[in-house]
Amino acid sequence: MHVKEKKIHINKPLELNSGKILKSYDLMFETYGELNDEKSNAVLICHALSGNHHVAGFHKGDEKPGWWDNMIGPGKPINTDKLFVVCMNNLGGCHGSSGPNSVDIETNQTYGFQFPIVTVQDWVNSQKVLMDEFKIIKWQFVIGGSLGGMQALQWSLDYPDHINNAIIIAASPKLTAQNIAFNEVARQAITSDPDWCDGDYLKHNKVPKRGLALARMLGHITYLSDESMAKKFGRDLKKDKINFNFDVEFQIESYLRYQGEKFVTSFDANTYLLMTKALDYFDPINEAGFAKKMTQCKSRFLIISFTSDWRFPPSRSEEIVKMLVEYNKDVSYACIESDGGHDAFLMKNDNYFEVMRTYIEASING
Amino acid sequence: MHVKEKKIHINKPLELNSGKILKSYDLMFETYGELNDEKSNAVLICHALSGNHHVAGFHKGDEKPGWWDNMIGPGKPINTDKLFVVCMNNLGGCHGSSGPNSVDIETNQTYGFQFPIVTVQDWVNSQKVLMDEFKIIKWQFVIGGSLGGMQALQWSLDYPDHINNAIIIAASPKLTAQNIAFNEVARQAITSDPDWCDGDYLKHNKVPKRGLALARMLGHITYLSDESMAKKFGRDLKKDKINFNFDVEFQIESYLRYQGEKFVTSFDANTYLLMTKALDYFDPINEAGFAKKMTQCKSRFLIISFTSDWRFPPSRSEEIVKMLVEYNKDVSYACIESDGGHDAFLMKNDNYFEVMRTYIEASING
Repeated sequence: MHVKEKKIHINKPLELNSGKILKSYDLMFETYGELNDEKSNAVLICHALSGNHHVAGFHKGDEKPGWWDNMIGPGKPINTDKLFVVCMNNLGGCHGSSGPNSVDIETNQTYGFQFPIVTVQDWVNSQKVLMDEFKIIKWQFVIGGSLGGMQALQWSLDYPDHINNAIIIAASPKLTAQNIAFNEVARQAITSDPDWCDGDYLKHNKVPKRGLALARMLGHITYLSDESMAKKFGRDLKKDKINFNFDVEFQIESYLRYQGEKFVTSFDANTYLLMTKALDYFDPINEAGFAKKMTQCKSRFLIISFTSDWRFPPSRSEEIVKMLVEYNKDVSYACIESDGGHDAFLMKNDNYFEVMRTYIEASING
Repeated sequence: MHVKEKKIHINKPLELNSGKILKSYDLMFETYGELNDEKSNAVLICHALSGNHHVAGFHKGDEKPGWWDNMIGPGKPINTDKLFVVCMNNLGGCHGSSGPNSVDIETNQTYGFQFPIVTVQDWVNSQKVLMDEFKIIKWQFVIGGSLGGMQALQWSLDYPDHINNAIIIAASPKLTAQNIAFNEVARQAITSDPDWCDGDYLKHNKVPKRGLALARMLGHITYLSDESMAKKFGRDLKKDKINFNFDVEFQIESYLRYQGEKFVTSFDANTYLLMTKALDYFDPINEAGFAKKMTQCKSRFLIISFTSDWRFPPSRSEEIVKMLVEYNKDVSYACIESDGGHDAFLMKNDNYFEVMRTYIEASING
């Protein structure tokens, strides 16, 4: 499946949660499958912290497909033979939608650290703008894992007339102090890197590589489970014996360093800061008008968690389920046995895929 | 209880695990209580990653006592009315024993990053040297939490004739890949700080403050439990409302930054690197001759874990218990209910203190 990304420029101001206004902005997205005449088969995929709009298929010349290609495509659980799938790079991102590396048309300068802080609500509002461009009235499904799941939940609250089903995977209704703490250490790693240059690294022709790599390494530990790390690396040595020096001794060290180095070639440090802030701020239950929103909410829900996920463990998904049940919503829940940790939501798993397929097919046919 | 630290210079070479040799070295220590005539009431306390020899009592003028003062003193579980307690700063440390900030007498230069890598076995060997200085034949107890507990276990293996009881608290028989991963990110934070200067920061009149603070912040997350963080900080804001900027928004961020900043005034970056390496390398069960050592081991054991410790959870202590039981050793085990996380081993807790007191008194009287 070859795919092409598309970009549109939106010349209508977007008022952000912070009170700031984006006067105009770009949205980069990809689509898969065909929108039917009734426009009733549209699916929005929301990406997580380090994701982007390239969720499935291959860009010409690429050897690797989009980040959720195992889930989305002809005959796959999110079946593009039947569904029209849209995925957008979130605002503040670094893959084509307006973000820190874009030019602010008011100042004619790169935004850098001046790009406004965006929230999950802001993303949902900008996704609604893209939806309007397609003249789609209702998403049949809004689907996301982790931070993407939070967007799906927000959709059900903010646009009750424009969503039929929210599929919320490996997510949480809000971050805990520990979650925020990990984000804060990642941010401190970036902002304490001298090459961050107070956020203006682009102007100084620098990249805060060390800080961004540290943030990524730390993130990786929280995405994997203790079990999967033990299985994959254990205490295996890089060389055949202990060398009593500060080179890589254990395979896990080598893996982390590689992940850190790879990430800095494809991701922007200021975007990383923005994405972690959106995570920290997300707390819809605590927002004014929540109860009213819940009463108006008409969406059906599928919530999925994974047993070994310790970033957003099953108990966090179950908070969402409990809250939805209390408001008498139509909610299905599956806790999937997996040793994949938080990253399990990206991995092939028979039970997980079967739950997705069954729920989606039943919703289409029902 | 006012206490004074003491330093001795050892003029006899110490051969290290790595094959390197420390030709001479300093050992800094403190003692509490009186050694009896039979020298049968001696206790060795082993410190953990960021600890030191000042384990109890007050240095003149200090407002805060040593790091385990709630546990050690007259009438306390480690009762200095009856016991003679010794605690030593480990080699490679930064509180008086030879370490990266000491002068290498061979080169007349500060060791810095050239200080040799030390292991738990090396520490135990140097503690044996201190023991010999006191002409003590047998420790009644060797006691430690976390990395300190690993030293207590190593004592029972390496010096079967010189230890009666090993008390191993919140420890593990070896690190998992996830444990090593956290250590590696901490090390990368330090060594990627430009002020680390390839380990020679002292010569350049610099301190890798940013890296060391990051390492400490990260460490702190793993020392606290999710529950205790939630209780202590939750999602409480620093100011009365969200401000949509990168200043501190949540109390937990403020706490972490403070912990990081405080740590860099009292701890050395190269020592931090060495201590994490000693943790990574510790794996006595995998050492040659382990079975023989276990057969010769005569120590009794008390193993203690804490329910909310996710750095070394109860299951890790239970690995030690299982191994000791398999070798038919005399072992007691208590898993203490606590929301204190890994740091619970440093906190006052009735059940924990009662277990310590009972075991110690029974051993003295029996």
